[in-house]
Amino acid sequence: MEDQFLYEQIAARFEQQVSEGVLSPGDKLPSVRMLSREQGVSLSTAYKVYVELENKGLIEARTRSGYFVRKRYQETRQSLPCQVMLPDTTPVNVDEMIATVFRHIPNEHMIRLSQALPSAELMPVAKLNKSMMESLRKSTSGNGHYEVLQGNIALRRQIAKHSINWGCAIVPDDIVTTHGCMEALIFCLRALTKPGDTVAIDSPTYFGIFNVMLSLDLKVLEIPVHPTDGLDIGYLEQVMETTAIKACLFVPSFNNPTGALLSDTRKQQLVELLRTREIPLIEDDIYGDLYFGRKRPLSCKAFDTEGLVLLCSSVSKSLAPGYRVGWCIPGRFKEEVLRMKRMHTVSSATPTQAAVANFFETGRYDLHLRKLRKMLHMQCLHYTEATANSFPPGTIITAPQGGYVLWIELDAGIDAFSLFRMAMEKDISIAPGQVFSTDGRFSNFIRISFGAPLTTEIRNSIQILGDLVRDYNTMALIQKSP
Amino acid sequence: MEDQFLYEQIAARFEQQVSEGVLSPGDKLPSVRMLSREQGVSLSTAYKVYVELENKGLIEARTRSGYFVRKRYQETRQSLPCQVMLPDTTPVNVDEMIATVFRHIPNEHMIRLSQALPSAELMPVAKLNKSMMESLRKSTSGNGHYEVLQGNIALRRQIAKHSINWGCAIVPDDIVTTHGCMEALIFCLRALTKPGDTVAIDSPTYFGIFNVMLSLDLKVLEIPVHPTDGLDIGYLEQVMETTAIKACLFVPSFNNPTGALLSDTRKQQLVELLRTREIPLIEDDIYGDLYFGRKRPLSCKAFDTEGLVLLCSSVSKSLAPGYRVGWCIPGRFKEEVLRMKRMHTVSSATPTQAAVANFFETGRYDLHLRKLRKMLHMQCLHYTEATANSFPPGTIITAPQGGYVLWIELDAGIDAFSLFRMAMEKDISIAPGQVFSTDGRFSNFIRISFGAPLTTEIRNSIQILGDLVRDYNTMALIQKSP
Repeated sequence: MEDQFLYEQIAARFEQQVSEGVLSPGDKLPSVRMLSREQGVSLSTAYKVYVELENKGLIEARTRSGYFVRKRYQETRQSLPCQVMLPDTTPVNVDEMIATVFRHIPNEHMIRLSQALPSAELMPVAKLNKSMMESLRKSTSGNGHYEVLQGNIALRRQIAKHSINWGCAIVPDDIVTTHGCMEALIFCLRALTKPGDTVAIDSPTYFGIFNVMLSLDLKVLEIPVHPTDGLDIGYLEQVMETTAIKACLFVPSFNNPTGALLSDTRKQQLVELLRTREIPLIEDDIYGDLYFGRKRPLSCKAFDTEGLVLLCSSVSKSLAPGYRVGWCIPGRFKEEVLRMKRMHTVSSATPTQAAVANFFETGRYDLHLRKLRKMLHMQCLHYTEATANSFPPGTIITAPQGGYVLWIELDAGIDAFSLFRMAMEKDISIAPGQVFSTDGRFSNFIRISFGAPLTTEIRNSIQILGDLVRDYNTMALIQKSP
Repeated sequence: MEDQFLYEQIAARFEQQVSEGVLSPGDKLPSVRMLSREQGVSLSTAYKVYVELENKGLIEARTRSGYFVRKRYQETRQSLPCQVMLPDTTPVNVDEMIATVFRHIPNEHMIRLSQALPSAELMPVAKLNKSMMESLRKSTSGNGHYEVLQGNIALRRQIAKHSINWGCAIVPDDIVTTHGCMEALIFCLRALTKPGDTVAIDSPTYFGIFNVMLSLDLKVLEIPVHPTDGLDIGYLEQVMETTAIKACLFVPSFNNPTGALLSDTRKQQLVELLRTREIPLIEDDIYGDLYFGRKRPLSCKAFDTEGLVLLCSSVSKSLAPGYRVGWCIPGRFKEEVLRMKRMHTVSSATPTQAAVANFFETGRYDLHLRKLRKMLHMQCLHYTEATANSFPPGTIITAPQGGYVLWIELDAGIDAFSLFRMAMEKDISIAPGQVFSTDGRFSNFIRISFGAPLTTEIRNSIQILGDLVRDYNTMALIQKSP
């Protein structure tokens, strides 16, 4: 165990040196023997350090020459500029485009770079099955009974226990379980708003949010998210002067699609700003556990002294999407949220909640998350490199610190929805930028998921995508000619 | 097997004779030996006939004297008159009363005559656990993957197969699975209506319906249900002349709380009436499988030639409420219902749908239903008798042909909500009539559930209830005095 800790520490130091430019591409690293001596660690630990760095795509082994720092993809990147836009409140209407993008999914041969999920092979199937069976056996009703309205108490206890990690001290009675995070968001929105109200959201953001807004007849006000810094709080403050915002719905940790992380300090600043105006914040924290750094980012809820933050999350992105186990911590709006649940769902499914509770209780969840985060971080680096190598110069790729998606800015002349159609013909699905806002402002962006380990097949697909982008203007011309 | 068939046939003939008055209370029945000779069956079969009739409370054995027809509870009963009322469209507001009634449930010592569910001991826990485990093992993802939008295909195949029993020839593609029947109703209502629209519903009806209507901001028009004949179609036809009805939501088979069954002929008549006006019918068929007769009642859907009937159901009342596995067959409104599901739930939980599909496939469901129906029928007779013996003369009890609730009309001077409070003090929960309509018109009715086998404890509780009713006026006076 000590060894593992040691090699991770040393690898992290190397990583830092690379990212800060202390080590440059092409630099030769000390031999394994040398490293072992310098760091006072065993040979096998020193070797593991280099394997780790190699897996992450930071260094490469050259036959008979040793280890070298790789050419860094970061060199071709730069930050995305915030888009300038008018503080319009727009009724959403991207429903049709989203339906088009996701209608094609059933094709089995499809390489699904559009699918924003860690792939099934990263999930602890056998252990989760075990948790299901253990929890069924423990229950005299086989978990066939109606669960209490507020949700399985064992699960709520575990969520409360984990809330320490996000900087909170939640108790089980603060929590209401739901049918996935989506239902949590809907209950919170319904508790806070009436049809016609305006809700501030991230831009770009997950298109599922638009569906929800559309279904509740709400207007959205899109607040720019910067891929590095996250939400533009200054912009929000400014538009609040002129527009009546009933609630905010943000994804402060690893926004989908940008992967942006709002720092703890800026989270505090956001909560503070909303507190002065008494505007509730629905915090979608579904990606919060999928961080690549040393420490879990805090939640906005951690800075909430007034019960104005409604935190929503689920295990859909980290454990089992099909289980539909989610929850919200609605602060001062608990009674309203419970009322919505009583009216709509009566109760959440018993067997799935109990199985997830067992998975938490047995420590399987923490163990799984540690592995999952490591895998996702590695896949992030692999996909980024493959994209940087396959796409034309000038392409801008985000450097997410968590989650499982890359947000890629293409040449301004490229229409992502046309590119989506071209890629579909090659059996590759991507998510075109248009589905991440209400007004098509990201028409030259695409989102690809690195949720699955990078196989040769996927690498080839990324190459094909890159070629499509390169040849885009020619292809578009051919398609237009009779 | 032949024997079982025989004794059931003979017992049924006796039952018919009793209900038609050919055999009267106190009449002596032939001895077992005599019966065996008369019917040409073995002694053991003849004996089983009498055990069956005794279990149903129809006959009694007197020591050294043989078998006699019991005093029939039916004698104190009569049909409920339809209430006369104005065709008012009322915004619902019973939310608070319902919350009061069901807030008290957590008390462990409570005798829950209010709980409208077959009790857990009637459920096939071990076999359902087995189905869960089998289906988990068969899935490479441990059923952790997102299910397709329309729902688990194996489950939809099984539902389609069973639809023959309700007179339909549904195909899997006609079906959309949901999170329980409640979600199915909500999706259908949302697909058909806008806030402010009027929906015709049963009166009395399950209070969950009011919650749904309230949450969707719909008006309800209450159409009387006669405990024997079911929905008053003539009344409906009449109010349709003056009121714009956007949709109907009825429970044609074993309405909750009356247990009323609309005959197949009258179902056809209803569908025909609505067809001429192009008014869609949401058919809540959740109790349809729990019939006591020889044959499953047909569904309204069986007479639907235009896709205007949206059938909704689930396994919540017949197998596992906590599984939250429901479905709807939305006819021509399928795309709208799918759109609602895409917006709200994304997909239903995978493991529970797969487990129920397995439970159907293996034939376990049919087997279980046969046993369950038999138990419920017997419990119905037991509870009816206990109630008839405990309550004062003049009490009117329904004679349901399916389901698991009795609807009891008390003296007009009794306020059921006050009675509910008195019973709560004795640790007995009942459902007061007020929660089954929007205007308190059933204020002297109560609903009790016969979902649990009649134990001595429950029998005593019914006696206590009867005593409370008897002493009601005295008690009410005492409570009012300072």
